Amino acid sequence: MARTPLHNRQEALEKAMALFWRKGFHATSLKDLEGALDMRPGSIYAAFGSKDQLFLEALECYAQRSLSEADRIFAAHASPMQGLSAYLRNLGSIRDEALPCPACMLTKSLMELGDQEAKTRQRVEALLAGMEARFAEQLRAAQSAGELSADEDIELLSRRLQSEVMGLRTFAQRDVATKDIRRMAEAIADTWASLGRA
Amino acid sequence: MARTPLHNRQEALEKAMALFWRKGFHATSLKDLEGALDMRPGSIYAAFGSKDQLFLEALECYAQRSLSEADRIFAAHASPMQGLSAYLRNLGSIRDEALPCPACMLTKSLMELGDQEAKTRQRVEALLAGMEARFAEQLRAAQSAGELSADEDIELLSRRLQSEVMGLRTFAQRDVATKDIRRMAEAIADTWASLGRA
Repeated sequence: MARTPLHNRQEALEKAMALFWRKGFHATSLKDLEGALDMRPGSIYAAFGSKDQLFLEALECYAQRSLSEADRIFAAHASPMQGLSAYLRNLGSIRDEALPCPACMLTKSLMELGDQEAKTRQRVEALLAGMEARFAEQLRAAQSAGELSADEDIELLSRRLQSEVMGLRTFAQRDVATKDIRRMAEAIADTWASLGRA
Repeated sequence: MARTPLHNRQEALEKAMALFWRKGFHATSLKDLEGALDMRPGSIYAAFGSKDQLFLEALECYAQRSLSEADRIFAAHASPMQGLSAYLRNLGSIRDEALPCPACMLTKSLMELGDQEAKTRQRVEALLAGMEARFAEQLRAAQSAGELSADEDIELLSRRLQSEVMGLRTFAQRDVATKDIRRMAEAIADTWASLGRA
């Protein structure tokens, strides 16, 4: 492999994100990063500071993309509840998207990071809270549109929604047929859609 | 710390389980194990073979305990659906139980283990399939008792149940109030209980 320096910082960051997402923080060695980014250790440090800082940047990049993806799906539906339902149904094809892995990188990091990575863990928590806030916003829009009862507790529902997404994407790591993941996502999407019709 | 040899193999195994459960496979060093088990490296290898084999034994120990816990709760309820609902509600107090961490050790391992740990990963998959089978058995009992429609797809439901448990226990790792986790578990338990009344 030719050691051509990678001038495109964003491209290198995305390669690092893909690697960290798939392997996790601890299992990714500097050697793995050198290979994936095709950069020497010195260049990696010069561009990103440290493995910890590179991981933090990768998390931000991932979270930004996840929020954009949710926004894109929500915006494509006039009905807020149909938008949420479509978002959940869309998770059924998560294995078709050639992602580094079906599970969420923030969830994987939440599971893996310990007291020694307290600062990074705090950032993961903040990014997950941001995703929860986006779900809450969508659920409040459903209430405003009269699709969801005004009695529904938005905080509780947005957290159940996040827990549902965490569960499904984590389950998708299991060794079960892709069509079964699709059926689960459809059933979950139907359940949430019916909440809007209740 | 006195280096008194630990003659109780089971006690050492449970300490290893607690450590692996909390820190994960990759982040747990042999040094961590030496400290937690109060055993020298040679004694650990003599008793358990290798870090990989010790981790495998810890997984078995964890899965056995999880199945027993589910059995205990299911057996305490004459109604199979009430048993399932109680199992879910019980997860709301998961932070009160002084566990190494609220998330499930099998789920954490599923997220963390990669191609290099293929054999261990297969075992995790088999243990999760075993848990799914236990849920399916309980749901079939609910059908036999006339509590659940005969039309319900047991495979789909048991997998959604496992995904629900994975999601809630993973969410419980987030930095949110313990009372909020309890409320989520109650709401989830109510949803599953209402399935039995539908």
